[in-house]
Amino acid sequence: MPRQRSAGRHGADGVLNVALIGQRFMGRAHSNAWGQAGRFFDLPLRAGLHTVAGRDAAALPEFARRWGWQRWTARWQDIARDGEVGLVDIATPNHLHADQGLAMLAAGKHVACEKPLAATLDEARTLRDAARAAARRGARTFVWFNYRRCPALGLAWQLVREGRLGAIRHVRARYLQSWGGPATPLSWRFKKALAGSGAHGDLNAHIVDLARFLTGDEIEVVHGAAARTFVAERRIEAAGAGARGRRAARTGRSDVDDCLLFLAGFRSGAVASFEASRAATGHLNDHGIEVSGTEGALRFDFEDMNVLQLHEGGEGRARRTAGWRRITCTAPAHPWIAAWWPEAHGLGYEHGFVNMAADILGALGGRRPVVPLPDFADAYETQRVLEAALLAVKHRCAVKLSEVR
Amino acid sequence: MPRQRSAGRHGADGVLNVALIGQRFMGRAHSNAWGQAGRFFDLPLRAGLHTVAGRDAAALPEFARRWGWQRWTARWQDIARDGEVGLVDIATPNHLHADQGLAMLAAGKHVACEKPLAATLDEARTLRDAARAAARRGARTFVWFNYRRCPALGLAWQLVREGRLGAIRHVRARYLQSWGGPATPLSWRFKKALAGSGAHGDLNAHIVDLARFLTGDEIEVVHGAAARTFVAERRIEAAGAGARGRRAARTGRSDVDDCLLFLAGFRSGAVASFEASRAATGHLNDHGIEVSGTEGALRFDFEDMNVLQLHEGGEGRARRTAGWRRITCTAPAHPWIAAWWPEAHGLGYEHGFVNMAADILGALGGRRPVVPLPDFADAYETQRVLEAALLAVKHRCAVKLSEVR
Amino acid sequence: MPRQRSAGRHGADGVLNVALIGQRFMGRAHSNAWGQAGRFFDLPLRAGLHTVAGRDAAALPEFARRWGWQRWTARWQDIARDGEVGLVDIATPNHLHADQGLAMLAAGKHVACEKPLAATLDEARTLRDAARAAARRGARTFVWFNYRRCPALGLAWQLVREGRLGAIRHVRARYLQSWGGPATPLSWRFKKALAGSGAHGDLNAHIVDLARFLTGDEIEVVHGAAARTFVAERRIEAAGAGARGRRAARTGRSDVDDCLLFLAGFRSGAVASFEASRAATGHLNDHGIEVSGTEGALRFDFEDMNVLQLHEGGEGRARRTAGWRRITCTAPAHPWIAAWWPEAHGLGYEHGFVNMAADILGALGGRRPVVPLPDFADAYETQRVLEAALLAVKHRCAVKLSEVR
Amino acid sequence: MPRQRSAGRHGADGVLNVALIGQRFMGRAHSNAWGQAGRFFDLPLRAGLHTVAGRDAAALPEFARRWGWQRWTARWQDIARDGEVGLVDIATPNHLHADQGLAMLAAGKHVACEKPLAATLDEARTLRDAARAAARRGARTFVWFNYRRCPALGLAWQLVREGRLGAIRHVRARYLQSWGGPATPLSWRFKKALAGSGAHGDLNAHIVDLARFLTGDEIEVVHGAAARTFVAERRIEAAGAGARGRRAARTGRSDVDDCLLFLAGFRSGAVASFEASRAATGHLNDHGIEVSGTEGALRFDFEDMNVLQLHEGGEGRARRTAGWRRITCTAPAHPWIAAWWPEAHGLGYEHGFVNMAADILGALGGRRPVVPLPDFADAYETQRVLEAALLAVKHRCAVKLSEVR
Repeated sequence: MPRQRSAGRHGADGVLNVALIGQRFMGRAHSNAWGQAGRFFDLPLRAGLHTVAGRDAAALPEFARRWGWQRWTARWQDIARDGEVGLVDIATPNHLHADQGLAMLAAGKHVACEKPLAATLDEARTLRDAARAAARRGARTFVWFNYRRCPALGLAWQLVREGRLGAIRHVRARYLQSWGGPATPLSWRFKKALAGSGAHGDLNAHIVDLARFLTGDEIEVVHGAAARTFVAERRIEAAGAGARGRRAARTGRSDVDDCLLFLAGFRSGAVASFEASRAATGHLNDHGIEVSGTEGALRFDFEDMNVLQLHEGGEGRARRTAGWRRITCTAPAHPWIAAWWPEAHGLGYEHGFVNMAADILGALGGRRPVVPLPDFADAYETQRVLEAALLAVKHRCAVKLSEVR
Repeated sequence: MPRQRSAGRHGADGVLNVALIGQRFMGRAHSNAWGQAGRFFDLPLRAGLHTVAGRDAAALPEFARRWGWQRWTARWQDIARDGEVGLVDIATPNHLHADQGLAMLAAGKHVACEKPLAATLDEARTLRDAARAAARRGARTFVWFNYRRCPALGLAWQLVREGRLGAIRHVRARYLQSWGGPATPLSWRFKKALAGSGAHGDLNAHIVDLARFLTGDEIEVVHGAAARTFVAERRIEAAGAGARGRRAARTGRSDVDDCLLFLAGFRSGAVASFEASRAATGHLNDHGIEVSGTEGALRFDFEDMNVLQLHEGGEGRARRTAGWRRITCTAPAHPWIAAWWPEAHGLGYEHGFVNMAADILGALGGRRPVVPLPDFADAYETQRVLEAALLAVKHRCAVKLSEVR
Repeated sequence: MPRQRSAGRHGADGVLNVALIGQRFMGRAHSNAWGQAGRFFDLPLRAGLHTVAGRDAAALPEFARRWGWQRWTARWQDIARDGEVGLVDIATPNHLHADQGLAMLAAGKHVACEKPLAATLDEARTLRDAARAAARRGARTFVWFNYRRCPALGLAWQLVREGRLGAIRHVRARYLQSWGGPATPLSWRFKKALAGSGAHGDLNAHIVDLARFLTGDEIEVVHGAAARTFVAERRIEAAGAGARGRRAARTGRSDVDDCLLFLAGFRSGAVASFEASRAATGHLNDHGIEVSGTEGALRFDFEDMNVLQLHEGGEGRARRTAGWRRITCTAPAHPWIAAWWPEAHGLGYEHGFVNMAADILGALGGRRPVVPLPDFADAYETQRVLEAALLAVKHRCAVKLSEVR
Repeated sequence: MPRQRSAGRHGADGVLNVALIGQRFMGRAHSNAWGQAGRFFDLPLRAGLHTVAGRDAAALPEFARRWGWQRWTARWQDIARDGEVGLVDIATPNHLHADQGLAMLAAGKHVACEKPLAATLDEARTLRDAARAAARRGARTFVWFNYRRCPALGLAWQLVREGRLGAIRHVRARYLQSWGGPATPLSWRFKKALAGSGAHGDLNAHIVDLARFLTGDEIEVVHGAAARTFVAERRIEAAGAGARGRRAARTGRSDVDDCLLFLAGFRSGAVASFEASRAATGHLNDHGIEVSGTEGALRFDFEDMNVLQLHEGGEGRARRTAGWRRITCTAPAHPWIAAWWPEAHGLGYEHGFVNMAADILGALGGRRPVVPLPDFADAYETQRVLEAALLAVKHRCAVKLSEVR
């Protein structure tokens, strides 16, 4: 493993050495997070960007240079053996989370894993159990549900805690995208064996986490679900087919959901709807949630991510000046904002990751995070909900209109 | 039956005599519609405001004077026998629709009935059958799904017909209100025996109609449903209790849904979600629908009723200038607008009723309406969907989280 | 003057006989207002639709029948002599207001005049003086600044009165349209001799009235102004040229402003900007105003006319949940709404006229209107501001960049 | 000057050594920009973070460590003498720009200066002349008008260039803030001798630049202006007064504008309005611009910074589906986006600075920037417009209402 310089694992010098597995989209987002966290936040621990691991060995040196990783390796297993590394960040495809996570927990590392926790509920349970065992030896786990660390959603969590909504009645959540049309070629994302599910695991995972996070409540039942695979046959891109003009002759079967909707119930009696799709024309990354209770309601749209909308006042209150209030969550009083820019200079997508890296470093340094940090046990609960929705699709206990006359 | 003056039923003089049953909210909305239609539209038939019937006999003379009804009666049965009346407009509570509708059809009248068609599917079927028989004798039926006649939704219908959306994939519909909290006293609306259902029949009826209207497709399956009665015990207002301060001691049981959500599938394979609630804090009359297809998408919010949002361009199109377009539907090119004001002077809630009255008069005068006019057969199909959703709630084929570990 | 039947002027029978001059856009809007006011509002006086006068004699009988006017005449002077008429409503082009208004005031009628009060400041002054004299004999005057009677602006007026905004600092007002491009042919609206001005008198009149109405303050200085005539030469449509394809060979000169912007100061020290245009592509009837003070701010957009936006909390207040609140002004607690529909059923453009007709009838019957009714003296103050802006354009005390180096 | 290691000025090694003067808000924003540019963009030159200079010597070492500056100094003059430094970035208060800029240009450095170019027009002219002379020796200048590098405004520039708007008619620009109430203590920002002006130089500078940038046209006249100093007397915070509770007894005079509005004309005949305020309650950082022409219009709101709104189609086009389109500018086809995240993951405030740093490095490496980079000559033109507006305020060629009767 080539290296630039060495550093202590963590302790007296206030540095926590981090190793990252992954060098694509999430590899970049996490690299940026570990680097920026220390520039913007005052933290009890600094992240040492120790090692990056990835499969594209040729690209690793430039990746490491660019993001400041001191070393790189094409064998992620090396990291488990490296005594200098204190935390391992897993930013790989879902089906790799289990092997990598178990190895790192066994090696005594703290582990931060991308969502969803695993490709299957079995794997997720194993990871949860391993995390529980490792916790006894002082290791901590984290799952990158980055949206929890959007300031508007941080404020939302606070307001629910303060009782501003009263008893929760409705949760309405959606995560709508539109990239999954027939022009998109077959990839592992469209194979159940590799991806577990389609839009469901990718998108519903986020909004189920948010629903649980904001309400502080657990789903106890899935009432029904509907899924569709709109494009069952996808073209296979020829391996070196660079030219856009060239039409691939071969096609392959997609066996995952392009959309999955389900209805659920919380222990409190609140009812929830979740809708995830890759075929929702006009929606690019339309991630939104609304929570309403007897005393108030709030809603968030990721496409307007610096804003939280709040409606105060339940039934019977004077209606003359009631309404939805657009709260621009860019004031020092809002979670994480004081670390960034003066009031009213909005943040973007990547800042949720930076805020989370800062909170992880803070938590390992003994601070209490502004809002709860999800660990493997927490993410496992989300995975159970996703599994229940898949079961509801499978059971197909539907009412046919042909029988209603 | 007191009368002011007589007029021919309809024919050579171009007047169609209308009788109205109902004198509350809908009685006013329909009275206004019949009066305004002839002031704003050039129509082949004029409505003669012949008779209004209602149960509050004391209030009828003033009601008739104010709205221009020539006669009034506390016995709606009188109307069936009045040979001058050509069309009977039923604006009464749901459980009365069947008796009144059947009587009027039997008397050879055209009938325009408030939605939903009936309180139960059985009654709805009977009305549909009676309408079918009456049609052979020249009588026509209409159901007041007034939102079809909002110009923005008229344009939406046209755009779908023109193929702008391609193959439909998603329908997302909601009708959210918030008046049903615990402070609202018990009324017939909260008794299943009288109302059939709660938010479901009242609100889902509208959005199921719209979904069928816009897509031109039929729902073939209900995948699942969830309902809640958040307030099961409601106070009973003492008969003469005028004082707000006085607290009613007695309470009674509400046995209808405060909200009902369901997921459904169209014959085309499109998937749909419907959500109706009287407990959605922050939503007053939030009636919205989105339809998306492979080539485009559109959405409508009743709280912004003069606007239709349109997204054109499916997958693979240049994204540089794609986006949701806010079309203010107040130009002469938009349905019904030419009859109203110069461009860009918005309409309100009541105009859908006026547009519908004008279309009914036009249709009976031989004109083809801009968008389809729902009849009893059409409304019966909507009622079947509502029934299927109620059955899905009843069957309770849910997945319990306690069984997913 | 053909007539249908007679009625007393006003008095014991509670009927105020109204005569209308005008049969175009405003003629229809006012006819509708006088008719609907009595259907929706409980008023101390009812409007008797006595006589309509207009220049298109051929169209008058049908106009009268449709709107319920009992008589019609092509000579507006007849009305002055008709002892049955109590109030004369002037809905004619601006340059006719003075002659008609003076005649009716001299005849002892109440007069309701369309805005602006007159085509020139001289005429406006004469009308104001005549109104002052007539007031001593019991006659009242009204000017149709209809937007004051939009419920959202009624609420805005109340909130300013309650001190919610603190000391006013800024007024930002615009009225932007886009119909005035080169394809629009020459008409009297583009001739200064007939129209007085272009966008200025037509559009700035409304927003200057609103600014004065909402703040309760008077403008004491115009700081500067800019005007443009973008299309100076317009085609003249041949008299009988019906065919769209036929291109008119002749053109004529437009000598009015296509847009006029000005900056002004209130006595309080608040600063204001006004912008009117017929060449603002993308804006159809975009009439908006924002008023901000030391303690709060509010804004209104006519294209979202049922909503008032309110921001509460000035400097130094906790920012955590501050924001603009969208108040849907459709609750019974909002001005005029109780007369219309149940909560949350939005109104449209025409309702401002109906509300104003109701308030005029109420005021003449001894009631205090919810918000002030503008009279000729009030409208004259608005006209002075418009005149000052025209003078500022004329003085051209501009700074040329060629002199700043 | 303490140092970490040495590096070549720029050349064979592809590194351009940058020195930064400033360690506050802008110092952080620029440090972040130079650091992030190389992480996200593939550039012909890399920025070497060579030296940071600032007046708070005690804080410099930590600032340098955090942001990666290799050296630090409390004497900015040292930088001029350092042969390793290729570009000097000036992020200091306005009145320092001239001295620092002239020194660095004299030393042969490229200079990137914060906006506005200088505190006075005289200083700005001197800087422009010095830049012109230095250009002959190969030095380049840049001014940090960062909003030009917001992707939505980059797209706006492209669309105007493509003729989508036709001939420009209107520019409406505002920059509204609300932090300047009486609770804000006196600082150099409120003294004309130090700051030149108040909201004007701070905020109008940005929107005048944007108006010139988007239209590609120059302002030739200022038609009128209005300014206000709402808070003339401000409290002086006692040095070392940490306790919020302690009320400062002394106050001092503010002699700058709290708001300044002006109207202007472009050479093309287009008319423009500019409005800057620190007293606009409800507006935090509300920076917006609209440009409309004969064929289309576009608008941008910084509080919704990932979106450009576009209206296509001028007069005479079919209106049935015309409307404002919300273009979410987060696709690879949009300027700068390909360097950041996959489609539909929004950027924030700081990204404009990073995009600009990348464009400066690209330009010095021989690339043509996506949109023009403002230099000192360009910024001087903006300053002339600001000066003309101040002259218009001074001349006070206003029309008093007391003279209009």
